Amino acid sequence: MNEQGTAAKGTLYLEDLKVGDRFVSAEHALDTAQIIEFATRFDPQPFHLDAEAAKSTFFGGLAASGWHTAAITMRLLVTSGIPLADGIIGSGGQLSWPKPTRPGDVLHVEAEVLEIVPSRSKPDRGMVSMRCETRNQHGDVVQQFQPKLVVMRRSPV
Amino acid sequence: MNEQGTAAKGTLYLEDLKVGDRFVSAEHALDTAQIIEFATRFDPQPFHLDAEAAKSTFFGGLAASGWHTAAITMRLLVTSGIPLADGIIGSGGQLSWPKPTRPGDVLHVEAEVLEIVPSRSKPDRGMVSMRCETRNQHGDVVQQFQPKLVVMRRSPV
Repeated sequence: MNEQGTAAKGTLYLEDLKVGDRFVSAEHALDTAQIIEFATRFDPQPFHLDAEAAKSTFFGGLAASGWHTAAITMRLLVTSGIPLADGIIGSGGQLSWPKPTRPGDVLHVEAEVLEIVPSRSKPDRGMVSMRCETRNQHGDVVQQFQPKLVVMRRSPV
Repeated sequence: MNEQGTAAKGTLYLEDLKVGDRFVSAEHALDTAQIIEFATRFDPQPFHLDAEAAKSTFFGGLAASGWHTAAITMRLLVTSGIPLADGIIGSGGQLSWPKPTRPGDVLHVEAEVLEIVPSRSKPDRGMVSMRCETRNQHGDVVQQFQPKLVVMRRSPV
């Protein structure tokens, strides 16, 4: 993450990407306070709000909202993950949370280019499919997201 | 949304759901300040941070982070959408943002049960596939999410 915490100015255009390119983000350390604060605003359920109440739930203890994991993943991608010149613009994708994210987890994201499809109708861009795995400090995948990104060309064809 | 803004205590178990059941949430009004505040923390890109800078980008004006739309959607589902007795617990699903979410949008969520599959190995639960459409005040779908939820039974079979 850079000092301002805003997006690093990227340099990569569609022409610069190839299938198999990999990017690894910086790390984000998650704690109980962050988990409860996010959940209070966006996912106010007992297993995300209260460590004691969470014990008797599906999760067996406090867990971050999956949407919190997703939001942290986006921050890591934007600030240190994939340096695209025109930003990271996704239209959606397949999302899964194979394991809960817990207090004390230190997350990073590993991203890989799966497919590059130039637009037929718009000569200034293409769609890039990626696999973005969010891993904790043990290497466990806590989120997998396979987005399709809109990536601009440096020079329209 | 109830007064505390926490999850309404739900009453529905797996036995209470059937394919085609529909739920409609309360509304959430989005404004520029919320968009910028979320983006500053989780998706700090010009088109989510600065209305002026956003004009020359892909979005042509300020737009909410898709993850902000997703987080608001979860809040609406939890506080007023799907009253499941043991909470809304998703393992993931297909996510898409067909249109940007803009300042001034008033969002609500419409959810429908698509499929109910009792667990073979765990007699106390099943997997429920749903379609959750987040719509703005014009009826446009700004997010579609098709989650698989873990839903507990009232009485194990």
